Amino acid sequence: MKDIQNLRDDRRINIRKVGVRRISYPVTVLDKARRIQKTVATVNMYVNLPHRFKGTHMSRFIEILNRFHGEINLKSFHRILQEMKDRLNAEAAHMEIQFPYFLQRGQSPIGTERIECRMHGTLQETDDLVMEITVPVFSPTAVSRPGVLPGSLGRWGTVRVSVRFNRFIWIEDLIGLVEQGITADSDRPGSVEAMTRNLGRVIASDPAISWFNVVVENLAAGYATFASLEGGGRPGIEGKGKSARS
Amino acid sequence: MKDIQNLRDDRRINIRKVGVRRISYPVTVLDKARRIQKTVATVNMYVNLPHRFKGTHMSRFIEILNRFHGEINLKSFHRILQEMKDRLNAEAAHMEIQFPYFLQRGQSPIGTERIECRMHGTLQETDDLVMEITVPVFSPTAVSRPGVLPGSLGRWGTVRVSVRFNRFIWIEDLIGLVEQGITADSDRPGSVEAMTRNLGRVIASDPAISWFNVVVENLAAGYATFASLEGGGRPGIEGKGKSARS
Amino acid sequence: MKDIQNLRDDRRINIRKVGVRRISYPVTVLDKARRIQKTVATVNMYVNLPHRFKGTHMSRFIEILNRFHGEINLKSFHRILQEMKDRLNAEAAHMEIQFPYFLQRGQSPIGTERIECRMHGTLQETDDLVMEITVPVFSPTAVSRPGVLPGSLGRWGTVRVSVRFNRFIWIEDLIGLVEQGITADSDRPGSVEAMTRNLGRVIASDPAISWFNVVVENLAAGYATFASLEGGGRPGIEGKGKSARS
Amino acid sequence: MKDIQNLRDDRRINIRKVGVRRISYPVTVLDKARRIQKTVATVNMYVNLPHRFKGTHMSRFIEILNRFHGEINLKSFHRILQEMKDRLNAEAAHMEIQFPYFLQRGQSPIGTERIECRMHGTLQETDDLVMEITVPVFSPTAVSRPGVLPGSLGRWGTVRVSVRFNRFIWIEDLIGLVEQGITADSDRPGSVEAMTRNLGRVIASDPAISWFNVVVENLAAGYATFASLEGGGRPGIEGKGKSARS
Repeated sequence: MKDIQNLRDDRRINIRKVGVRRISYPVTVLDKARRIQKTVATVNMYVNLPHRFKGTHMSRFIEILNRFHGEINLKSFHRILQEMKDRLNAEAAHMEIQFPYFLQRGQSPIGTERIECRMHGTLQETDDLVMEITVPVFSPTAVSRPGVLPGSLGRWGTVRVSVRFNRFIWIEDLIGLVEQGITADSDRPGSVEAMTRNLGRVIASDPAISWFNVVVENLAAGYATFASLEGGGRPGIEGKGKSARS
Repeated sequence: MKDIQNLRDDRRINIRKVGVRRISYPVTVLDKARRIQKTVATVNMYVNLPHRFKGTHMSRFIEILNRFHGEINLKSFHRILQEMKDRLNAEAAHMEIQFPYFLQRGQSPIGTERIECRMHGTLQETDDLVMEITVPVFSPTAVSRPGVLPGSLGRWGTVRVSVRFNRFIWIEDLIGLVEQGITADSDRPGSVEAMTRNLGRVIASDPAISWFNVVVENLAAGYATFASLEGGGRPGIEGKGKSARS
Repeated sequence: MKDIQNLRDDRRINIRKVGVRRISYPVTVLDKARRIQKTVATVNMYVNLPHRFKGTHMSRFIEILNRFHGEINLKSFHRILQEMKDRLNAEAAHMEIQFPYFLQRGQSPIGTERIECRMHGTLQETDDLVMEITVPVFSPTAVSRPGVLPGSLGRWGTVRVSVRFNRFIWIEDLIGLVEQGITADSDRPGSVEAMTRNLGRVIASDPAISWFNVVVENLAAGYATFASLEGGGRPGIEGKGKSARS
Repeated sequence: MKDIQNLRDDRRINIRKVGVRRISYPVTVLDKARRIQKTVATVNMYVNLPHRFKGTHMSRFIEILNRFHGEINLKSFHRILQEMKDRLNAEAAHMEIQFPYFLQRGQSPIGTERIECRMHGTLQETDDLVMEITVPVFSPTAVSRPGVLPGSLGRWGTVRVSVRFNRFIWIEDLIGLVEQGITADSDRPGSVEAMTRNLGRVIASDPAISWFNVVVENLAAGYATFASLEGGGRPGIEGKGKSARS
């Protein structure tokens, strides 16, 4: 009970985080093959405040977002966070942005493949940026009988990979690593544990990546099994001096 | 444009349907093995009205629902509809109720299996009741390698079956028909068309069922394939004189 | 039971509808202010078939879709349906496409407003096209106290309007009609019935619209109330000879 | 890059967490007024493992869960975690359980009110249990005009409160605290910041609660505003020696 004694003094009940969430916003993101790609994002923006906040400041988040016209890249990400921190006089600024990314490729049945992407950036004393992709995994066709369509054995599960990086990495290249990990020494998906280890091995071997988290989920009958694995340090916090945007 | 000329006379802009939706409600449903089962339903109730409706009547829907204490069976379903029709002076009364049904069985990895159920009843001059179940289909284990867990090949897709019936049918027995259809002359799921036909053949052979609709969906990479099939007449409309509750 | 006797002959268990669903696809739609707008759609395509269907034909749906590079307008909609009907030798072809449409406008707090759009086209002997928009309704600010932010009284509910039309209508103009109906002789939203009638009156007065359906939903505590209204005839079916694309 | 050097040695790519997710399961929870309440939960169970995990152990999670027949209370929660830790030889065991809780009360339009509940327990050296409720907030009726139904001004937003406690607390009592905070010195909801502070003040004054987190969200037009506040220490981690079940 002593833990929160000090909160009982009204003046010290401070708001920790304040912001706007679930803004649906058309954005332009970088595309390795076609330079840019237009898609639709969901945006969350918030700050940590040491002091009382006036509700009328809420519109500033949107003003800052609008100034960048939906152009999302590492540079604009940093500048939006910097403006949030400055204009709202905050200790830390956060932005989360989530969007479907469409990967062009011949071998996909529909010519294009939807990958869920998420970027979560924080600016406190240093920058921190996490990029995350979620890739559906389908049951392999290797075992299919004649007359059974490719991909028609259903959905095996999902791979979600989050990374911090010490130099720029294309979404396509991160997707490439994930696919390498999925297919590594396994003609078809066996277990969440094996796939998690394979993904960890492949991702850890990329020198651009300084930290990663892998979650593999398999849709079984009545439940899902999952396994997760984390590797690497966190730049900007453990003092390794490598910021996400350097 | 002439089509809606008559609507331009304000007095003739009549509300066609009015009601309440998305009531989350604890219910008791019939269970073949254990007599009753408690679960949580989402309920929609609405009426067709030939005349203007007073908003203050909206609470009557809830009053009627409350009088039955969440006991959902063919008899209470009919009585709720009758009360709606009477008390709201309506031409037709409708109730939709959706709930997860838990099927006990030994061979399921978790001892119990969740099936989505939906009942949609209408009372106009005669009764009409449609029961619907949605059953997930998992990739079969027949092809699994040693060391691969049962069910771990992922989710193949979904089967949704709607039926009208001319005598009482247990949810368990409808689930049984669906499973017979899924596994009929096919050691593993091949195509949505084959599975739809198998299901149609099995369901059509049950004399309790007077009408059915089957939709089979397969989760492929980037899209889902589906096929549907309908069979039988509609009692109470095509004058076959068999009502859902007889 | 006689109803489905004929289905018990295996050769006559015919698939009624077959197709692909839930294709996530980047599309370009028409925008009154900016000529075109890029967004992300979910696409369903299916046909009615009088005969057995070969699963290997499933990829034709996607091939047809890809040929149009995601350019969605009344003309391409018709041509896609025509190709589906021809190449799959079908009695009827259907396409449903759903996407967020971003409306630019100054008075919106975020400069842009997301509206859910849906187009559902059928080609049988004649064309039939329904356009649908879903517009969120927010509690009005008229009653807000000083210091209360515009829009901060929460979400009142949702308006969904579906229309058939006898000449081209911009999504912006349909949104305009809906907003006129929401605010018509009501300084703030009162009841689902009043708003449904107001919307019906406004939409019925537009000569471009030959049929409409309005559904208004209000989020109350523990449930939602709703009312719906339909007006106008259905071109191409009731023989009024006005097709959606003429 | 050095960060993850050690991971490049295959033998050291360890799985951190492994388990089962999204089990839909009928449960019995404690109810202050009626002793027990039957509802439907979603269950996640996982462990932290320092060593390689055999996939065949996955079924043990389910076996442990089944042994308790869905009876969820503080005592069974602890015993399930202890069995998971023991039988899977794990460093830590986790269980998350989420369910709708139905609160009986006269003043609710539907006689019962649905509250989302979540319990997240961890057993490492000591126990840690967080209970969370999410309560919808509706626009107040105080400002409604004659003829406007109670609750019909729509949904203002959502309050989510998570707590750790040093003696048993009923779900009803936690809901009571939240309602006290929502209505505290505010005839109607003003801003997310004011409501967050009011909630913080009320919750901090309950001696049963040793830690809390409050998140208030308001549905505005095109986005949601939110504010959050945290108070109190974490028993079992900061050495205050108060475990969640003592």
